[in-house]
Amino acid sequence: MKETVKPLIGMTMGDPMGIGPEVAVKALARTSVHAMARPLVIGHEQVMRQAVNRAGLALQVCLVQSETDAVFKEGIINVLQPEGCQVSTSAMGQVSAEAGHAAFVAIEKAIALAQEGRIHAVVTGPIHKEAINAAGHHFPGHTEIFAQYTGTQDFAMLLAYGDLKVIHVTTHIPLSKVSESITKERILKVIGLAHEVCRKLGIEQPRIGVAGLNPHASDGGLFGQEEAEHIAPAVQVAVDQGINAQGPIPPDTLFPKAIGGWFDICVVMYHDQGHIPLKVVGFTWDRENDRWDSVNGVNMTLGLPIIRTSVDHGTAFDIADQNIASPESTIQAIEYAVQLAKDNVT
Amino acid sequence: MKETVKPLIGMTMGDPMGIGPEVAVKALARTSVHAMARPLVIGHEQVMRQAVNRAGLALQVCLVQSETDAVFKEGIINVLQPEGCQVSTSAMGQVSAEAGHAAFVAIEKAIALAQEGRIHAVVTGPIHKEAINAAGHHFPGHTEIFAQYTGTQDFAMLLAYGDLKVIHVTTHIPLSKVSESITKERILKVIGLAHEVCRKLGIEQPRIGVAGLNPHASDGGLFGQEEAEHIAPAVQVAVDQGINAQGPIPPDTLFPKAIGGWFDICVVMYHDQGHIPLKVVGFTWDRENDRWDSVNGVNMTLGLPIIRTSVDHGTAFDIADQNIASPESTIQAIEYAVQLAKDNVT
Repeated sequence: MKETVKPLIGMTMGDPMGIGPEVAVKALARTSVHAMARPLVIGHEQVMRQAVNRAGLALQVCLVQSETDAVFKEGIINVLQPEGCQVSTSAMGQVSAEAGHAAFVAIEKAIALAQEGRIHAVVTGPIHKEAINAAGHHFPGHTEIFAQYTGTQDFAMLLAYGDLKVIHVTTHIPLSKVSESITKERILKVIGLAHEVCRKLGIEQPRIGVAGLNPHASDGGLFGQEEAEHIAPAVQVAVDQGINAQGPIPPDTLFPKAIGGWFDICVVMYHDQGHIPLKVVGFTWDRENDRWDSVNGVNMTLGLPIIRTSVDHGTAFDIADQNIASPESTIQAIEYAVQLAKDNVT
Repeated sequence: MKETVKPLIGMTMGDPMGIGPEVAVKALARTSVHAMARPLVIGHEQVMRQAVNRAGLALQVCLVQSETDAVFKEGIINVLQPEGCQVSTSAMGQVSAEAGHAAFVAIEKAIALAQEGRIHAVVTGPIHKEAINAAGHHFPGHTEIFAQYTGTQDFAMLLAYGDLKVIHVTTHIPLSKVSESITKERILKVIGLAHEVCRKLGIEQPRIGVAGLNPHASDGGLFGQEEAEHIAPAVQVAVDQGINAQGPIPPDTLFPKAIGGWFDICVVMYHDQGHIPLKVVGFTWDRENDRWDSVNGVNMTLGLPIIRTSVDHGTAFDIADQNIASPESTIQAIEYAVQLAKDNVT
């Protein structure tokens, strides 16, 4: 019997002064990760070794020159160290231009490997915006780096936690600019991306709930015209194309309905319309120990020619050397990457 | 030993064709409600009697001419029927001008009784906007009725569920108008109302989290200036006044922090910024029985000269004759009314 070939997943280490290396090695200590994927860390060998030691894990870090050199088995962490990836400091929790550059070249390398078809997907670790900017790489975040390096115009950010998935029509713009940015064409594009990603995740007839923009989805035009002018027409075209889309739905009832099983995915109009419900369900504060108990969720960029998933938390500089970070979000990001990549594996 | 006098709470029945009368009688069947309050229903005697029968409750409905006639004890529902409160149909779940008018005059009467000091607080049952409008009463909802009848300009909507409380700087306006509506003065006013209500609820030094408007609270001005121009200055003035306010806080992390115990109340800039997190935690869909399992939460109008709390759900016309509505939200609304009124009871 022929064994199914597992996707080769490139994992960028993230900012070496943050929790990225820690959550990566903790994820790579799990049998489940090796059972579903062939993981290749793209980052700094010594940083990964220190992360293994700090976490007290019995794992061997192996430097490889290429993915073809790697031996994929439990107990081994394969690290590909790109040219220019230097880390001379170990000042955990500090913004450092050197660390920002090291994180950045790991991302560049991962994108190149994915574009060459040498890895099937990229799972990114958390980076620090100030650090990459201090290194002269002027991007607000991963999404924009991936878009620019792959020449992509029409992309969208998806967040997932448990049964709740939200995909954004707009993201990092002022709230006052949202109204003018949500055109029928853009909404239709995002509904299409939502449909496509759900199909890849194994949902045959995805049920897509499309949020309104205004309170009560404007209550028939009482508080805004965007529903009538852009959202409803986009939903209608999607329905005409055979997509199971519904909306505009009052934003405050959409999410409890989605969590309750009405929809497989929610199309949201702006950053916080999607981020607020996702973080309310995915983030839990541990009152007793005075820290985040769970910081769950996966972040994906859709519309790219390559597959990219990510943790949904930051570098957490405040706890970077405490060995208390949870790898759950990293493991979920790997699971999604594997799901999305599995049809491309030959 | 002198017994503490319990607040006299006027409960409007809501639209008689919806679940308002049902949740009222179910709440009034609870010992806990009579232990904390002297409840007086303002509505239609026969409607309340039918609700008792439909719910199969062993309660006696007594028509009273005035609150001074009422006998407050378990087993008895006192109903004051205002002039003009007529209900001749029993078409449950239907929009009816007559029913809308009956609901409306009950609200008018409750406001008058509260203004005259004859009741200590008003707890409103759910009304149907189309029904009251069909009856010629052109208001979007309770809040605006209470504001107009009491001549109030500076009011604010508060929603509460469990430990999460949100108070709104703006509510029923288009999202595109939010930016121009959130002035420093208005934000400061709402911070003050938040502080005051928490004090009345027994929180000595309320911790107030103030949301930003833009993604990441604009990330230092990258996506909008409202944080720097209006929100931060309002927080500063509040702090100078001795109020424990913090912000602007990134909107997507504010709510998990508040749920985790960081803040007693959240000041939010627009309707869905507060409604989305509240309904994600308060509303649960029952997949097995294909209906809302819990629809929790209390709605309050602050800044009025009288106390008004309300259920946080609608008339639910679709289940109006099924005897499956839960009185939890009504009971919570009574609890809040009692808390807010207790200092006024003599």
